[in-house]
Amino acid sequence: MRMVDLINKKKSVETHTEEEINFIIKGMLDGTIPDYQVSAWLMSICFQGMTFDESAMLTQAMAKSGDMLDLSVLGNNIIDKHSTGGVGDKTTLILVPLLAAAGFPVAKFSGRGLGFTGGTIDKLESIPGFKTSLSNEEFLNQVKEIGAAIASQTANFTPADKKMYELRDVTATVNSIPLIASSVMSKKIASGANIIVLDVKCGSGAFMNTYEEAKKLTETMVEIGKRSNKLMSAVISSMDQPLGNSIGNGIEVFESIQILRNQGAEDLKELCLYLGAAGLVKTAKVKNIEDGKKYLNKFIENGQAYQKFVEMVKYQGGNLEYIENPEKLYETGFAFTLEAEDSGYVEKLDALTAAKASKLLGTGRDKKEDSISYNSGIFLNKKIGDKVYKGDVLAKIFANSVEEGQKARKTLFEAFKLSKQPVAQPDLIIETFGVSS
Amino acid sequence: MRMVDLINKKKSVETHTEEEINFIIKGMLDGTIPDYQVSAWLMSICFQGMTFDESAMLTQAMAKSGDMLDLSVLGNNIIDKHSTGGVGDKTTLILVPLLAAAGFPVAKFSGRGLGFTGGTIDKLESIPGFKTSLSNEEFLNQVKEIGAAIASQTANFTPADKKMYELRDVTATVNSIPLIASSVMSKKIASGANIIVLDVKCGSGAFMNTYEEAKKLTETMVEIGKRSNKLMSAVISSMDQPLGNSIGNGIEVFESIQILRNQGAEDLKELCLYLGAAGLVKTAKVKNIEDGKKYLNKFIENGQAYQKFVEMVKYQGGNLEYIENPEKLYETGFAFTLEAEDSGYVEKLDALTAAKASKLLGTGRDKKEDSISYNSGIFLNKKIGDKVYKGDVLAKIFANSVEEGQKARKTLFEAFKLSKQPVAQPDLIIETFGVSS
Repeated sequence: MRMVDLINKKKSVETHTEEEINFIIKGMLDGTIPDYQVSAWLMSICFQGMTFDESAMLTQAMAKSGDMLDLSVLGNNIIDKHSTGGVGDKTTLILVPLLAAAGFPVAKFSGRGLGFTGGTIDKLESIPGFKTSLSNEEFLNQVKEIGAAIASQTANFTPADKKMYELRDVTATVNSIPLIASSVMSKKIASGANIIVLDVKCGSGAFMNTYEEAKKLTETMVEIGKRSNKLMSAVISSMDQPLGNSIGNGIEVFESIQILRNQGAEDLKELCLYLGAAGLVKTAKVKNIEDGKKYLNKFIENGQAYQKFVEMVKYQGGNLEYIENPEKLYETGFAFTLEAEDSGYVEKLDALTAAKASKLLGTGRDKKEDSISYNSGIFLNKKIGDKVYKGDVLAKIFANSVEEGQKARKTLFEAFKLSKQPVAQPDLIIETFGVSS
Repeated sequence: MRMVDLINKKKSVETHTEEEINFIIKGMLDGTIPDYQVSAWLMSICFQGMTFDESAMLTQAMAKSGDMLDLSVLGNNIIDKHSTGGVGDKTTLILVPLLAAAGFPVAKFSGRGLGFTGGTIDKLESIPGFKTSLSNEEFLNQVKEIGAAIASQTANFTPADKKMYELRDVTATVNSIPLIASSVMSKKIASGANIIVLDVKCGSGAFMNTYEEAKKLTETMVEIGKRSNKLMSAVISSMDQPLGNSIGNGIEVFESIQILRNQGAEDLKELCLYLGAAGLVKTAKVKNIEDGKKYLNKFIENGQAYQKFVEMVKYQGGNLEYIENPEKLYETGFAFTLEAEDSGYVEKLDALTAAKASKLLGTGRDKKEDSISYNSGIFLNKKIGDKVYKGDVLAKIFANSVEEGQKARKTLFEAFKLSKQPVAQPDLIIETFGVSS
């Protein structure tokens, strides 16, 4: 088998066999296929796509390239959730303790983030002392004991995906539905859960800007999962405005604690319950999404979800003082407010622009090596559809310097657009796949 | 400037600036841009193409990456010819002495070949003693003295094209009109002639199988040349059957000598005169192609073209005994004949199949390092349109072993197809660009 022939095959829209895909992934990892051939192949995929079967074979090859977690010791109803990433998305922080409190153990691998804000791991690291780096053994033991753990991926987790992503990042081949889907799903499959809930974000603040793209990505991931014998649920959710009220790292943990204490933003809580229910319907526990949401909500209302979160933070070494007084998570030297210059209704609160404002506060990183600010961030007091009077505080900005705060404030101002006419609240859940409502 | 952004630009069908293209070529050569980025960029070009302006800028950047020959000392009517390569194409061997005899000095750089038969340089090296490796100074001095020289390209000739071709060869990015056109034209521009005649082959034995592709390639090369202030003529010629009667290396030199001695195949002579005339019309010497052909034919008829060839071979150290007795150029141990099994007319003589037969005799190479057979080859006694009686010799095969000869004979048999009905001779010249006939 010659790699140049395989590149040519893909370039000519022919379909790869499993043997060919395994040959490519193995060769990429052991260096027998040079990067310049892999990148040419990846670029062909960007133009010619891949069938669901090819995508599933690629996913399998990448999943098997490193450690595969065996969660069968935890039972048969092990739910994992993946979000494609959006502004203010802290659902993992809420869902993991919520599902665990409801009797569904969750062993959740998460990542650090590149972009406007950190990933789940970065957010958790804003809690002083919180240990995110666990061995597979520590990780599984914790889930066995308390039902919940969130840890960063181990060094030998899907190395083929890591290697391929590094190459895609510098060769403009990130933006390809089958490559994105295979990357996500390889990590899900190596993580070992048997029920997978996908939250595909769609809108200005998401990787997928249009519904068509989001739908294609969702379908591809669902088809890949089915081909690996996973029970699949998926949701397309709106990312035209940030999710919930906070953007940053520590401040998003703060907001997650609010939700778990049965306070905080309705949209965020709704999405968490919905995603959790989309997992539960794949078990015998509930019949449909509505039942699932009601069932899970009980564990927020009775405080058990919050207690599970406290338990998890304690188990992973986090300083509980910051959980009891979560305002400490976004204490900075400088706070700014953005006020409405007129009365009206919030017509637009652009997620991407808000994310850029947050990035100016240091909440994100461009390269893996970059440091990240844990305490700075934005709190949105008003969202789309809200009535606003002149002088009302639209948002608060927490910054580590006057300069950063002022820059962020200026950018955040651009994110808001007011209308004289009443504006309806946008739908959060756009479409659901694989579950009966 | 970041290469990943430039790849993305090309992927999104945006147009590169000259600065961007120079950045890429410089970075590719000095290693600051890694091969995996260059190959992803090349694959984007395969899918998205390049404008004529971009192709011309790429050509210029590659031409300037190494030595640029200055032929201005030779005058203002310096003609260069390029063929995209076909089976039995020995026009360079004939045209160079012909134009020189007619008073137009030619300094011709040629290459070794990869494929079914060798390139012009390989063919010349079938003449014992012929020296193809000349310094730029030797090369120019020879043209100044006798008006004609054919030499292999020097080490520092278009290094960017060399590097890029090596990468294209292993990344399935050879097949792209702007990349092929830029590669060809960079060498033409670095070679320094001011009049360029292109012979784009079209058919089963050519790189361009269809008229549409050939036309697109021709137009692209002509537009590139114009943007470098070259006077451009171009011809699309048929390559459905081999050109002339011989396929091989030494045997093609033999046939060239036949033409120069005013014997030999009509189609080959016609194409040589036509291509020469297409160059001459760009000078003040002749008004149109017909005049040009007549003018050049005189130098075949009066023996001066042949004498110029002898002079050139002598100057470059070739053994003249082989020119006086050119049959010695294809002396092998084993000769085979292929006879007609029936009477009729030759309907098909497939160029690609005939080339494969020749390759079985060792006349070509797959890799630069491979050796090549100079003396073996094929002589075609019949071509398309010829009347054939049962038992007539269709072709002779000259082989270095019985086994090779029999294999080649078997393949060559497949190339011929006879018809009971008379068959018209196919048109050799399909289209002409940039000249009035």
